Amino acid sequence: MEANANHLPNGEAAAAVLDSPTNPMVTPLLTDLYQYTMAYAYWKGGKHNDRAVFDLYFRRNPFGGEYTIFAGLEECIKFIANFKMNEGEISFIRQSLSGSCEDGFFDYLRELDCSEVEAYAIPEGSVVFPKVPLMRIEGPVAVVQLLETPLLNLVNFASLVATNAARHRFVAGKSKMLLEFGLRRAQGPDGAITASKYCYIGGFDATRMASCLTAMLLLDGYLVSPFAEHIPMLLSAHLWLSPDEIIEKSLKSADGSTICEDFVSLVQTWLNKIKAVQWSKSSNGDTNHSELTAFTSYALAFPDNFLALVDTYDVMRSGIPNFCAVALALNDLGYKAGGIRLDSGDLAYLSSEARKFFQSIEKEFCIPGFGKTNITASNDLNEETLDALNKQGHEVDSYGIGTYLVTCYSQAALGCVFKLVEINGEPRIKLSEDVSKVSIPCKKRSYRLYGKEGYPLVDIMTRENEPIPKVGERILCRHPFNESKRAFVVPQKVDDLLKCYWPGTSGKPRVELPSLNETRERCINQLEQMRPDHMRRLNPTPYKVSVSAKLYDFIHFLWLNEAPVGELQ
Amino acid sequence: MEANANHLPNGEAAAAVLDSPTNPMVTPLLTDLYQYTMAYAYWKGGKHNDRAVFDLYFRRNPFGGEYTIFAGLEECIKFIANFKMNEGEISFIRQSLSGSCEDGFFDYLRELDCSEVEAYAIPEGSVVFPKVPLMRIEGPVAVVQLLETPLLNLVNFASLVATNAARHRFVAGKSKMLLEFGLRRAQGPDGAITASKYCYIGGFDATRMASCLTAMLLLDGYLVSPFAEHIPMLLSAHLWLSPDEIIEKSLKSADGSTICEDFVSLVQTWLNKIKAVQWSKSSNGDTNHSELTAFTSYALAFPDNFLALVDTYDVMRSGIPNFCAVALALNDLGYKAGGIRLDSGDLAYLSSEARKFFQSIEKEFCIPGFGKTNITASNDLNEETLDALNKQGHEVDSYGIGTYLVTCYSQAALGCVFKLVEINGEPRIKLSEDVSKVSIPCKKRSYRLYGKEGYPLVDIMTRENEPIPKVGERILCRHPFNESKRAFVVPQKVDDLLKCYWPGTSGKPRVELPSLNETRERCINQLEQMRPDHMRRLNPTPYKVSVSAKLYDFIHFLWLNEAPVGELQ
Repeated sequence: MEANANHLPNGEAAAAVLDSPTNPMVTPLLTDLYQYTMAYAYWKGGKHNDRAVFDLYFRRNPFGGEYTIFAGLEECIKFIANFKMNEGEISFIRQSLSGSCEDGFFDYLRELDCSEVEAYAIPEGSVVFPKVPLMRIEGPVAVVQLLETPLLNLVNFASLVATNAARHRFVAGKSKMLLEFGLRRAQGPDGAITASKYCYIGGFDATRMASCLTAMLLLDGYLVSPFAEHIPMLLSAHLWLSPDEIIEKSLKSADGSTICEDFVSLVQTWLNKIKAVQWSKSSNGDTNHSELTAFTSYALAFPDNFLALVDTYDVMRSGIPNFCAVALALNDLGYKAGGIRLDSGDLAYLSSEARKFFQSIEKEFCIPGFGKTNITASNDLNEETLDALNKQGHEVDSYGIGTYLVTCYSQAALGCVFKLVEINGEPRIKLSEDVSKVSIPCKKRSYRLYGKEGYPLVDIMTRENEPIPKVGERILCRHPFNESKRAFVVPQKVDDLLKCYWPGTSGKPRVELPSLNETRERCINQLEQMRPDHMRRLNPTPYKVSVSAKLYDFIHFLWLNEAPVGELQ
Repeated sequence: MEANANHLPNGEAAAAVLDSPTNPMVTPLLTDLYQYTMAYAYWKGGKHNDRAVFDLYFRRNPFGGEYTIFAGLEECIKFIANFKMNEGEISFIRQSLSGSCEDGFFDYLRELDCSEVEAYAIPEGSVVFPKVPLMRIEGPVAVVQLLETPLLNLVNFASLVATNAARHRFVAGKSKMLLEFGLRRAQGPDGAITASKYCYIGGFDATRMASCLTAMLLLDGYLVSPFAEHIPMLLSAHLWLSPDEIIEKSLKSADGSTICEDFVSLVQTWLNKIKAVQWSKSSNGDTNHSELTAFTSYALAFPDNFLALVDTYDVMRSGIPNFCAVALALNDLGYKAGGIRLDSGDLAYLSSEARKFFQSIEKEFCIPGFGKTNITASNDLNEETLDALNKQGHEVDSYGIGTYLVTCYSQAALGCVFKLVEINGEPRIKLSEDVSKVSIPCKKRSYRLYGKEGYPLVDIMTRENEPIPKVGERILCRHPFNESKRAFVVPQKVDDLLKCYWPGTSGKPRVELPSLNETRERCINQLEQMRPDHMRRLNPTPYKVSVSAKLYDFIHFLWLNEAPVGELQ
């Protein structure tokens, strides 16, 4: 359940109304041990309450693309809101740290929470870009340091898999139904549940995981509505059914008005009719009998949701005619069959042949709409195979995508980092010989500037105290590290990117966490808003990320100040 | 806690003593919804208690290698032992399935458990090969079907990441310490915790995850001992400390006999000595002052575990001399410094230079053992970079490996499958136009046959009722699908691979689940036992997997019987 209280006057009240993270394993101990040794060193040196500002950001878009979907925020905020160690956890930390740690430190940990922390973030589901902070966390350095690893863990995979889902949606096109099939291959149970949720945000329609059952229970009914369209799939039940084994053969019609006493015979009658027509490929031989029995028995169990996996024996000579026989028998009783699934072979060819077959049935037997029977394809699908299907032409309505989606097979990790940008009001820069790893110092604000055609043009970071860019006013946008790259922009619209999701006890207004569906809509809308050349699969144009002239100057002042002057020998 | 009762007389007693799965999300709902629709169709058709035998196996070794480590078994057995739906879950399934499902089905689910199920498996931590069943699950078809997805989920990633860890260990060599660093990049919280555990099984020494803290708590003290060697790492604390900020400067000696009143000055004295010697690279200039302050303050907090990240400014001109100054000051007080970590740059070169520096310090100041100060390397390490380091020569003692290890970046999924091989005593085969996807039918037994030199030679599957291969007796081993590939083997040792870990109420003796450390030892021993050419990174020799002559004949009889005769048009 979401917190209903918007703009709460203080953080303590806010803490009370936010649920814990979905995964019970997400506790203050889900961190690297060195964060606790650091916290001890801060505490021992009397520096633990020094006020720090950290930015969470990534350096490179995944999957060779030029955009990323930011996800995982809700779990981060719930984690922050509920950050508190219990006695068991504290004694555990005591055990794990060196024996020389003073008792006072554990008293300090006992009282520790995030009431002094403020968390700002770009809304979850937003399209985001390298270097621009996804989150800005301010607070006492020791506690913010303890947040580093869990926040990275919660954002990295969530954003990666949401981006992967969005990329699959982009290739599949808007009209197709996308089903997440990844539970069995996911990186652990939580990998699967996490993937399901964030694939939905990224634009998928449903999961076949019953355990979105699990997720639903855990999320307190949260996922019920978005995942209502679970698609039950028929396992190739031929494995264990033999013909003539069906005992209860009667089936009530959809409106309850009549009962068909022998549905099995009705199916057989339809199969004979299908085999009798000239265009039917099965007319040359028998369809597989145990497959037919399996389909029939499944239809008796689920007459209003009959879906068949048709590639167990031979799609065109057995699976499709058998499916049609059952579907037509169901049609006699007022039921509409759910469709077929193809899980092997040439999906472009087979889906087209199946479509023709359905259309011929529609025509031959005057069954309006039968030609549009749903065709689902699965079998190790990914961006490339979807693209290849599009190029060949196909008749698939829905895709079931598993391994490549949920494990982010083509790039299994996103490299978000968490860097200090200010301490006690003083800006800090993290240097590196690799320019791409130099951090952008200062507590910053970020804006997205839109051009005349409505597309986002550029993200710009400024220092905290700079004036907000104004619509219609020219502003210089500079590449943070390349002095020759700069451009004037006259924004037609300005979005202030960072919102306050956790004010602690600062009294600042808090933005409420949106519902899952609101986040999904944000994601879909933002993706649609992007200029198409940023989105294409091949050679996409990089979106521009910039800093204000003032911030540019400050970065380079600090850089020169800090960087050692080398000595060639 | 492990079950202590070995060879329990019946399964119900056994069910009572096994803990639930580690992850509370692993429930009967962690499955694909279609498993429940299937179960309903079975139940509706009166077939739910048909006795089925399923094999769980994979078809191809991951990472381009020729071996796999089987892991995840313990969680599977705990899941089976505790398989039971509560009312909330049942009403959830009712909600998710079609409204037409009969009430009796939910009464059936309410009573459902795995007391009629038997689970056989190869011991966890074993080296395993394609096609040979890792697990064989027997029982009423409906319940076994409900186990499919969770068992696959629990085995797939666990085995993948254990194998990945074993491969990293193989390249790193036995003498190096391997640390798992992956929490922040893992696929979710559970991905991280799962990875930590199975990396340990695969031969890693420790994790830096405090939340092995978490894992430890969850595992009821289970991981305390194996992960006792958490290695605390120093964050580059220069970020927030400025010189002269250290207030408490006194440090007690290790034996408690004396107090150094100004440890900061002692460090400075040592730094001056180091700078004074001719070979010191720092003699040309100053080391970074805030780095020195950070090191000093960290040493004051953890004098018995001083570890420093030395690449923040300049490894050789600042980090190493600063580290040595602090380490030598600690040495004066009877403490031994923990070592350094390199997280960037040319690790081969820098580790060698650091080693030389340490050795020179040892010699110059007569500090025995100082030359052996521990050097840890990290920074996006993987099999390839470890191999490259080996080729260049280096002085690294420990590796911290993160992203590539825990996300299994080079292959993010293992493709285990779960296939029916027998129903009501009748063998079943799953056909496919792709021979590699044809299943090996029959309830089977599997053996590992060893040759004269002690190496495993071949795994052989037989039908259930065939005699066990005998040491010293010639046996024909056939490739399951290639008629020309066969060989006689005279085994010097025979291992019966499948053990009964869950007898249900069958009364069969049950093998106890080993401890985590026993599993890890099994893994390490089995890896050492393998013939080296199966293990090498480049072009490894495939290990042979075979079937008995009798099983071979039966497979091909069944295949010909089932496969449709095509018709070319």
